[in-house]
Amino acid sequence: MRMSELSRQSATPVPSIKLYLREGLLPAGERRDPNQADYSQEHVRRLRVIRGLVRVGGLSIAAAKGVLDAIDSEMPLNDAFGIAQRAASVPVSRAEVDPVDLDSADELMHGWHCSPDGPGRLGVAQALRAFTAAGQQLDLAWLDTYVDAARRVAKADLDIVDSREGLTAKAETVVIGTVLGDALFAALRRAAQEHLSGERYRERASSSNTTQIVTDSGKELS
Amino acid sequence: MRMSELSRQSATPVPSIKLYLREGLLPAGERRDPNQADYSQEHVRRLRVIRGLVRVGGLSIAAAKGVLDAIDSEMPLNDAFGIAQRAASVPVSRAEVDPVDLDSADELMHGWHCSPDGPGRLGVAQALRAFTAAGQQLDLAWLDTYVDAARRVAKADLDIVDSREGLTAKAETVVIGTVLGDALFAALRRAAQEHLSGERYRERASSSNTTQIVTDSGKELS
Repeated sequence: MRMSELSRQSATPVPSIKLYLREGLLPAGERRDPNQADYSQEHVRRLRVIRGLVRVGGLSIAAAKGVLDAIDSEMPLNDAFGIAQRAASVPVSRAEVDPVDLDSADELMHGWHCSPDGPGRLGVAQALRAFTAAGQQLDLAWLDTYVDAARRVAKADLDIVDSREGLTAKAETVVIGTVLGDALFAALRRAAQEHLSGERYRERASSSNTTQIVTDSGKELS
Repeated sequence: MRMSELSRQSATPVPSIKLYLREGLLPAGERRDPNQADYSQEHVRRLRVIRGLVRVGGLSIAAAKGVLDAIDSEMPLNDAFGIAQRAASVPVSRAEVDPVDLDSADELMHGWHCSPDGPGRLGVAQALRAFTAAGQQLDLAWLDTYVDAARRVAKADLDIVDSREGLTAKAETVVIGTVLGDALFAALRRAAQEHLSGERYRERASSSNTTQIVTDSGKELS
């Protein structure tokens, strides 16, 4: 198909497609003549992955390229996890993180074996520091809820990876799941906060922005 | 104190401080003479909040300003939740989201009362679409783990808000917790994935990036 048709089928504007081609996220089409290239269903699918990573996952073009290169390279799963985790994290070096916060992070995740310089450990230390720096006292029961929930979610993530057949499919699930799983969990957390805060504060608030979801059949979800 | 001292105490470079002043995130210091202003401990604390939101939370300057304005305004808690949720989410309008995906989101969160245009509901719909568009089959048990974990985390978030005394402290906890909670959970999920994938794949992999955390006392965490 031509680029106009690729744009239609993938719901991606032509200038974005040209950007992804130029930056190497999307492989070039097959050249028919100097002015025209031919694109396949593989290009449509790849564009959907790119837009998922960039628009929903919030990745930069460079970070999305790193993730796609990881999928293409068929690297070992541990390494693919590392690439995906780094791509989907604000870059931090250990020098930026206070050793006191690293101790707090290790204590919180006691028993977990993590790379000392991995985005998980450094990110936890940084987040703990950001909370206390912003004047928020850290509550132990609250932290334990986060740790327990993260462990359940991570176990479910790995079960899905295990269920995939073949290394490419496993690696693809690792990278897509790492990036998009953040977005899914963050959105679910917001929805749950809204639901639970409505339950707690609705009667107290004089005006509330919270509206009940009404399904298309007009029936209220209970 | 002068700006050089403010920079030292808050560990923030002077050009960043000037940017935050110019953009209205940081209130001006008290003018001593035309060339010099005086800053207080409140400025130090505020700069730490700003850096937490921008560097760890990954917010833009504009989004961080919205969050800080919400803290300053002492608005009702439901509204503060809404502001914080929007600031900490990639903006989405309902027109961008496929009604089919909204149905899937409502089904997944059945029984939750959410704003039809809230970032929670729209974000869940978008994330579900991104997964399927990227060729990932959605597994029901995996999704239920996410929903259940998000609900536990959101309940813990609200319990912390309830425990704070006074409306400003509650609102501050809402906005800081919404933004930084994403970063904390994402980092914990990465750490848990690394720990659990090490357990599962270590013996299978010929070379592993995963290293055990060794505490400063040289004792391995068990």
